[in-house]
Amino acid sequence: MAQEKYTIGIDMGGTHTHVGVVGAEGDIIGRAVVPTTGYESVQAFVNTVSEEIGKLIEKNGIAKKVAGIGIGAPCANAVTGIIEAATDLPWPSPIPLVAMMEAATGLRTVITNDANAAALGEKAYGNARRINNFIMLTLGTGVGSGIVVDGHLLTGRSGFAGELGHVCFPFAADRKCGCGRFGCLQTVASAKGIVETAKRMMEENKEESMLAEIPLEKLTSRHVGEAADKGDATALRVLRFTGECIGKACASFAAFSDPEAIVLFGGVAAAAPHMLPAIREAFDREALHLYRGKVKFLTSSLPEADAAILGAASLPLVINS
Amino acid sequence: MAQEKYTIGIDMGGTHTHVGVVGAEGDIIGRAVVPTTGYESVQAFVNTVSEEIGKLIEKNGIAKKVAGIGIGAPCANAVTGIIEAATDLPWPSPIPLVAMMEAATGLRTVITNDANAAALGEKAYGNARRINNFIMLTLGTGVGSGIVVDGHLLTGRSGFAGELGHVCFPFAADRKCGCGRFGCLQTVASAKGIVETAKRMMEENKEESMLAEIPLEKLTSRHVGEAADKGDATALRVLRFTGECIGKACASFAAFSDPEAIVLFGGVAAAAPHMLPAIREAFDREALHLYRGKVKFLTSSLPEADAAILGAASLPLVINS
Repeated sequence: MAQEKYTIGIDMGGTHTHVGVVGAEGDIIGRAVVPTTGYESVQAFVNTVSEEIGKLIEKNGIAKKVAGIGIGAPCANAVTGIIEAATDLPWPSPIPLVAMMEAATGLRTVITNDANAAALGEKAYGNARRINNFIMLTLGTGVGSGIVVDGHLLTGRSGFAGELGHVCFPFAADRKCGCGRFGCLQTVASAKGIVETAKRMMEENKEESMLAEIPLEKLTSRHVGEAADKGDATALRVLRFTGECIGKACASFAAFSDPEAIVLFGGVAAAAPHMLPAIREAFDREALHLYRGKVKFLTSSLPEADAAILGAASLPLVINS
Repeated sequence: MAQEKYTIGIDMGGTHTHVGVVGAEGDIIGRAVVPTTGYESVQAFVNTVSEEIGKLIEKNGIAKKVAGIGIGAPCANAVTGIIEAATDLPWPSPIPLVAMMEAATGLRTVITNDANAAALGEKAYGNARRINNFIMLTLGTGVGSGIVVDGHLLTGRSGFAGELGHVCFPFAADRKCGCGRFGCLQTVASAKGIVETAKRMMEENKEESMLAEIPLEKLTSRHVGEAADKGDATALRVLRFTGECIGKACASFAAFSDPEAIVLFGGVAAAAPHMLPAIREAFDREALHLYRGKVKFLTSSLPEADAAILGAASLPLVINS
């Protein structure tokens, strides 16, 4: 009995979780967003997501046409179905999310790292369609990555390859990461890292800045991006510094996998126009001659949540039960 | 006409070049060593190597049984046959080594990165035989690496993946690398890096050390290893520091490819017994929870030059013309 199949793609971030119903052609026919934080327990979160999925299935009349659920989540282990040691989620790890989601929905569920899911989505439908060697950097609440090598996702021994937000660099040696170490890329290139940079630059600032009008505890990376859009000199300096650091990090990442492109993705990537010149300049100054001028820096061509939803949605079709 | 085939494996290091005649079973039936430095030109070096190959072929009576030459060399591009931007060789790059060697010997020649060749040798004949995800760190005049993922060598877009000696870390932020940057792993974990660490520690040293008896300009990493073997406290501290740095670097490398093992290889790896406890301790302290306690640190089971010779010798059989 051949019938049209849909999959549910879930992109689980540190602050929001996006749910999409995806058709066979990669068309997102329905979507929902719920917060990731503010629940009494992880079970309450799972119940909320499950309810949203139920509503989407009913609304679109596809009750018996759903092949399964794919989840992209921080520190998710595709092999065990468990979220292990996630520093960016509000619950203690390990979280047996696959088992919980299957119990709540009755649908077969598979999981991978959120950044890996985004890379798969970008490869399937985005700017990386014709690129077989690339690194996707997801710049959001944390910094993740999905590494594609010879057209395939690099998973490593147990599915945990590509945690490039936790590679340590000299430029962040004085910043402590949620993982406990100093110097992780995430401490500079994440949304929190940008806010930290803004606070430091404002402290030593002699010039006026519209960022100074926002109470420090409410300052977000979005504010920095918006101020930069309006030409605020401090905000522009914050994003140039961030870009400089990302470029230096990418010079080291190139020494790992010799990529053709590095794709920036996630909330922070919205400020990419202010960062890209500094990223490219730092990369071409810092990379080995072997890589200089040879790596394309791209932004995702998919709307913010779509790459991750599409990548997650492709999981039930790609991964066998 | 089925007849026994031999290949010539060449391991080209910063100071010495090892040549081996390798049989179908990975048996090295003849070998020669020539210095890599001290020639008037790269052509003179090629002529010397070619003469050694001719002698080995004649001596073993295999004139028509040689399938080709495989070379492992720093910064070699398997696609173009050219050595590009090698900072550890005495000649200006680019060097069209494949064309020069084919002209000198009349034998089909293929080339790859020396560290990649070593990784292939270790996978084929060494401690990594049953390991499908590992990183081989070659600690010699420079620091190179070969990354094996799902049983295959990670080559990247143009064959330049795995230059992990040029990933920058906070622990070496005050050390300038031959590549022009500060902080490269190579500035600490290479033979030169160990000598630099020894010099720094001796300057601030209050304790007696047998290293102080050697003129500073003649001090080598081998001296440090030998002094450590005899229990010299300064030498032991130098190697503990080196191990600590390698362990921290590997914590970041694990975030890239989630390896099952990291294999140490090369001249500096001879001092591994003095470094391994510090490597393991630093790794398990610094790595993300995802990797802690899960990565095996091994030394190569092949005699020093053999892994690279065997890996290089396998190239003419693995790579099509």
